[in-house]
Amino acid sequence: MSVVADLTVLGLLGELDDIGRDERGGWTRPGFGPADLQLRAWFVECATGIGLDVVADRNGNLWAWWGAPGPDSVVTGSHLDSVPGGGRLDGPLGVVSALVAVGRLRASGFAPIRPLAVAVLAEEEGSRFGIACLGSRLLTGAVDPLAVLPEGFDGLDRDRAGRDDATLSRIGRFVELHVEQGRGLVDLDAPVGLATGILAHGRWRLTITGRGDHAGSTRMADRTDPVVAAARVVLAVEEAALAVPGTRATVGRIEAVPGGTNVIASRVELSLDVRAEDGGTVRAVVARIAESAALAAARNGCGFAIEAGSWSDEVVFDPTLRSQLDAALGGVPALPTGAGHDAGVLAAHLPTAMLFVRNPTGVSHAPEEDASEADLNAGVDALEQILRDLAS
Amino acid sequence: MSVVADLTVLGLLGELDDIGRDERGGWTRPGFGPADLQLRAWFVECATGIGLDVVADRNGNLWAWWGAPGPDSVVTGSHLDSVPGGGRLDGPLGVVSALVAVGRLRASGFAPIRPLAVAVLAEEEGSRFGIACLGSRLLTGAVDPLAVLPEGFDGLDRDRAGRDDATLSRIGRFVELHVEQGRGLVDLDAPVGLATGILAHGRWRLTITGRGDHAGSTRMADRTDPVVAAARVVLAVEEAALAVPGTRATVGRIEAVPGGTNVIASRVELSLDVRAEDGGTVRAVVARIAESAALAAARNGCGFAIEAGSWSDEVVFDPTLRSQLDAALGGVPALPTGAGHDAGVLAAHLPTAMLFVRNPTGVSHAPEEDASEADLNAGVDALEQILRDLAS
Repeated sequence: MSVVADLTVLGLLGELDDIGRDERGGWTRPGFGPADLQLRAWFVECATGIGLDVVADRNGNLWAWWGAPGPDSVVTGSHLDSVPGGGRLDGPLGVVSALVAVGRLRASGFAPIRPLAVAVLAEEEGSRFGIACLGSRLLTGAVDPLAVLPEGFDGLDRDRAGRDDATLSRIGRFVELHVEQGRGLVDLDAPVGLATGILAHGRWRLTITGRGDHAGSTRMADRTDPVVAAARVVLAVEEAALAVPGTRATVGRIEAVPGGTNVIASRVELSLDVRAEDGGTVRAVVARIAESAALAAARNGCGFAIEAGSWSDEVVFDPTLRSQLDAALGGVPALPTGAGHDAGVLAAHLPTAMLFVRNPTGVSHAPEEDASEADLNAGVDALEQILRDLAS
Repeated sequence: MSVVADLTVLGLLGELDDIGRDERGGWTRPGFGPADLQLRAWFVECATGIGLDVVADRNGNLWAWWGAPGPDSVVTGSHLDSVPGGGRLDGPLGVVSALVAVGRLRASGFAPIRPLAVAVLAEEEGSRFGIACLGSRLLTGAVDPLAVLPEGFDGLDRDRAGRDDATLSRIGRFVELHVEQGRGLVDLDAPVGLATGILAHGRWRLTITGRGDHAGSTRMADRTDPVVAAARVVLAVEEAALAVPGTRATVGRIEAVPGGTNVIASRVELSLDVRAEDGGTVRAVVARIAESAALAAARNGCGFAIEAGSWSDEVVFDPTLRSQLDAALGGVPALPTGAGHDAGVLAAHLPTAMLFVRNPTGVSHAPEEDASEADLNAGVDALEQILRDLAS
């Protein structure tokens, strides 16, 4: 039935290894960029090869159907794009495992009583426009395509993109398999686990304004150096996160403007990413950060401004679906995650669950992200069992 | 005699106002870039307009002669390029004041007994290749053109650039007028002053290596975040400079790699610029910074590396020439400067001096750099007096 040469997780991942590989040993695959387009073309070919019918929706998401699309379907999948310098599993593992599981079900002679589909959601990492889960957010109407997509963007048709109830109504239940982005399963000594929910998550942009000046002739006492103030702000961010257990706060981008070696900067811009169990905690931590940062900046005579970016409330995955999956797998650990996912976006519209595969390094969004061959196989076995159970 | 419309400092500066103006209200004029080439063309036209003979040397420096070039000449000038987002005086003021002073001497019927010249030294700020005073350093053989200039660079001929004793031997004495880059003359309540010397100055590149990771799923306790370590390093730099009065240390560039909002960075790169009265003090302060920074990085589990960039020993300007200028001006304050200048590079080869014009903001390398019209005129009056005295 299959024309795919090596229908295993490692076999399919191996076919993707050279796509979007960067010079630091990681993978850089922004959504709708050349690497992502190559991955999408590969998906169409591979899904077609195992006998699925691939359709693209108006928002750049791909759906590979086994059986006529319908409202009681079981859909599994993830994304193919990556952060800059990411690992090889975040995203592709869920797509590849879904293809292998569905391919094996078809080869086994299994006859589903409901339609099954493998999905690729577009631009999940938000590395293109700063909006994570772009494909699922457009699909569900959570973001306005005219506000998000720049004019002239050739990846999507701005005027056709946006909320798509017809596509959404064809997803009965959604299960996303993903490599764990932390050491929860390592601590629990388990190869796979089910997600309880996703932390609330917001992004902000911090700006510290000082006075540009000459690095050689300006006495230390005469400076209003925003880089020194920014250093204090970064430490205030860490301190505020450490004060509330379970909270995560990150400055991943920092830029001094104009950025000359012999120039005291006039401005520093920083990104701030904060996550916690619930939205109220995130907002409280950010309020604390804003207060400390304003004081830290003022200590150097600098100004401070904070501007809100994207926001995601906490997600609690469907308890009924989760119980059903847990039973199908004979009981596996349950654990929360701090990472956003398309499953989290879809959870507001339909029963949704996530299956995690153990990551021995706990590292993600970096080349060190990893999983053993045994655990990769345990993941695909679990997903196959889930699909068999849900579609019977 | 002159065909220049408004031969005043403000008149000539006004002609340059639109060249290389950037969106932040400053001027960005890297050496040999389009703005710099436009300024150089303007200089040739203006100097020719007041009757001078302009020649370019093999290193991109321009020399506008009044009289046949010779070893007992008196040369004055500065540079036209700027840092990114710089002010309008750093560089151009010395060139413009020289043109006005020489133009007025010519118009007054003054008959010099020595050749006079106005010089434009190339790429003084080092914003192009990270090498400050490029034109004077190439001219004096302080840097190797094949090591500094990239292949294919079309601003200079790499194979012809480099030490040029013929040109150097035609500079008898060199006086550079410059806007003060600090508040020394404000404190001394004087419109102009003479430089005693230039602080020793070095540049370094600091690299902090951590572990790239996912901003949402990695617990605070599990992180090896180089941005947090970099913040501590920036504070260590400030602390080390404050501990030794007169020392200046600056981090003007900071970059987190890969630089994603939802990614804990794997590496941070910072520039370090340190200046002090003598080279030994600079090296001692940098050793202290390296020690503190390694400890600060280790506190976050990060690695730390420091790499040396450019180096300039302290400069003491020629005492005889300085006394002569002081007498010609009827006694003016003397003060050191922390900024490097072409006059500092040339000081190793010939008698050299610098004349500063008061800057009420003390700010330099930023659009706030300023001087009153009265002080600009006091500067050009002093320079005219100096040239008259030295060429009589």
